[in-house]
Amino acid sequence: MTTEQTDAQIANALNAVAARENVADIYFVACGASYAHMLQAQNIVEREANAIVGNALNAAEFKARAPKRLGKNSVVIVGSLSGTTPETVEAAKIAQQSGALTICLTQERGTPLEQESALTVTYVHSPLITSPDHLPAVLGRLTFGILKVRERNTKLADFEKGLAALPALVEQAVSDRRAKIADFAEAHKREAVIYTMASGANFGQAYLFSICLLQEMLWVHSSAIHAGEYFHGPFEVTDFDVPIIQLIGLGPSRVMDERALAFAKKYSQRLTVVDAKELGLASLPETVSEYLAPLVLSPVLRAYADKLSEAKGHPLTVRRYMWKVEY
Amino acid sequence: MTTEQTDAQIANALNAVAARENVADIYFVACGASYAHMLQAQNIVEREANAIVGNALNAAEFKARAPKRLGKNSVVIVGSLSGTTPETVEAAKIAQQSGALTICLTQERGTPLEQESALTVTYVHSPLITSPDHLPAVLGRLTFGILKVRERNTKLADFEKGLAALPALVEQAVSDRRAKIADFAEAHKREAVIYTMASGANFGQAYLFSICLLQEMLWVHSSAIHAGEYFHGPFEVTDFDVPIIQLIGLGPSRVMDERALAFAKKYSQRLTVVDAKELGLASLPETVSEYLAPLVLSPVLRAYADKLSEAKGHPLTVRRYMWKVEY
Repeated sequence: MTTEQTDAQIANALNAVAARENVADIYFVACGASYAHMLQAQNIVEREANAIVGNALNAAEFKARAPKRLGKNSVVIVGSLSGTTPETVEAAKIAQQSGALTICLTQERGTPLEQESALTVTYVHSPLITSPDHLPAVLGRLTFGILKVRERNTKLADFEKGLAALPALVEQAVSDRRAKIADFAEAHKREAVIYTMASGANFGQAYLFSICLLQEMLWVHSSAIHAGEYFHGPFEVTDFDVPIIQLIGLGPSRVMDERALAFAKKYSQRLTVVDAKELGLASLPETVSEYLAPLVLSPVLRAYADKLSEAKGHPLTVRRYMWKVEY
Repeated sequence: MTTEQTDAQIANALNAVAARENVADIYFVACGASYAHMLQAQNIVEREANAIVGNALNAAEFKARAPKRLGKNSVVIVGSLSGTTPETVEAAKIAQQSGALTICLTQERGTPLEQESALTVTYVHSPLITSPDHLPAVLGRLTFGILKVRERNTKLADFEKGLAALPALVEQAVSDRRAKIADFAEAHKREAVIYTMASGANFGQAYLFSICLLQEMLWVHSSAIHAGEYFHGPFEVTDFDVPIIQLIGLGPSRVMDERALAFAKKYSQRLTVVDAKELGLASLPETVSEYLAPLVLSPVLRAYADKLSEAKGHPLTVRRYMWKVEY
């Protein structure tokens, strides 16, 4: 597919949203990495929407929870790279049956997910870069787009302007950090446990790195710590030899990150800091830079994972269970 | 304080909620263990409310997120055992300034939290039992109570009937499992990493056990895995020697737990299962048993932690940072 096709699909989806009698909720429903990106979209809705409610849920949890508000006043955005994740396909079916407008985000056409959805937006998957037709970008465009057509939110243009700058910005950010990334990989290749930490718009990226890159692809024990929760439990496991990768964000959640950082710096000698402020985001529209931060952190963190994979001699593509055994 | 006082305070809070012109949202705001219990309340609202929105947030995240919907149509329930947690006190202040009705849940009177809240409900903290005046019970009573006075939800009576049976039920459940709990403690006293897993109404208890009991009080690395997310990343760290404590719930989330359990059973020899179905909950009103399950799991899990603490020779009260250093 082409960028023009994705653009047309988004425009089409937003027309359908605009045509609804009422939109009270946006449900963001997916599993694993797709779900992680959706946490960012939920954050946008909570920060920006006057009345619309945003709710990100794992697809199986969505089915079990069966939210009572779900219905004709809902937009449900379901996401699956392959378009075949059974729980997500089922979630789309449930959403459609409830009368909700169901929009699927996927890389593949003609899949079960598309069959169970009213509208499709296709995206490109290429984890070392963020382009306007990548999942987190498309999710942000849809989210700000819905807030525009339903509530006259004005940030879509800034968000899209920022997105256009991301490919070059990400390339530069990764290139600037090559030496740091190589040092990280070498220093962490024998670690059995690596924590991640973040808050606000970036928590989803800490979660994604923890469950997909570390646990799934590298078989390293991990947990994503919320920086605001750190002092209410998790900080007690901090010690000189406990590795933490900490994401420092922009916007009002930054103070939370900085407080946790000041502590972690003092008590751990194994701290890796990826600060959105040092990644070139200051050149982007300030109104949306906090929401663009995770879209830059995502490929930058992937570069860390790639190098760690190399240092460990454990390719990111290796699985022992996924797609191999019954589950 | 007495049970009668707590009852009167809840009645008073519900009168205030009933007197509001409109209630569109309930925000549940706290940190750490208190926040964990609030995830259950959010679940109740999403499962049961026709129109009211439930949103549980860490108190510092609540401040940073500054939800745009927050205002005179909101009820904000803030919780802090001591009534002094700075982030939670600040959240209460923000909530009050927004015009929301702010209800604090706390053990202590005359605290900063109470000063920043319109109404107070006091609870008793005693982690080895669940009584109707304990935090998760009070939270459930308030939640079902709000749904009753605003939306005519009818489950409060069943929930309270169930609560009345919990002290005896919990005592029996712990007593029935004494041998199992002792075996668990002995078998896990040298583990560096212990995962927890749950979904639905019980996810908050897995999270609480992970961040408060294991990380904070026992300095054991941990992460709460959502059973629906397990197959989309975390399951790849499963191996014969990886310890997992899995909570099996009631209601529609049970199938998610069972699917994860079937897999974990096959690939880990270090699985500890705590099944709500085996804890006597079948004797409680079926309409609310899924919501009561975490209130039984909480003290049962505390018995596991107590015994593990004993086997490790590491008292649950030991801290290296909390209340000891600046943070």
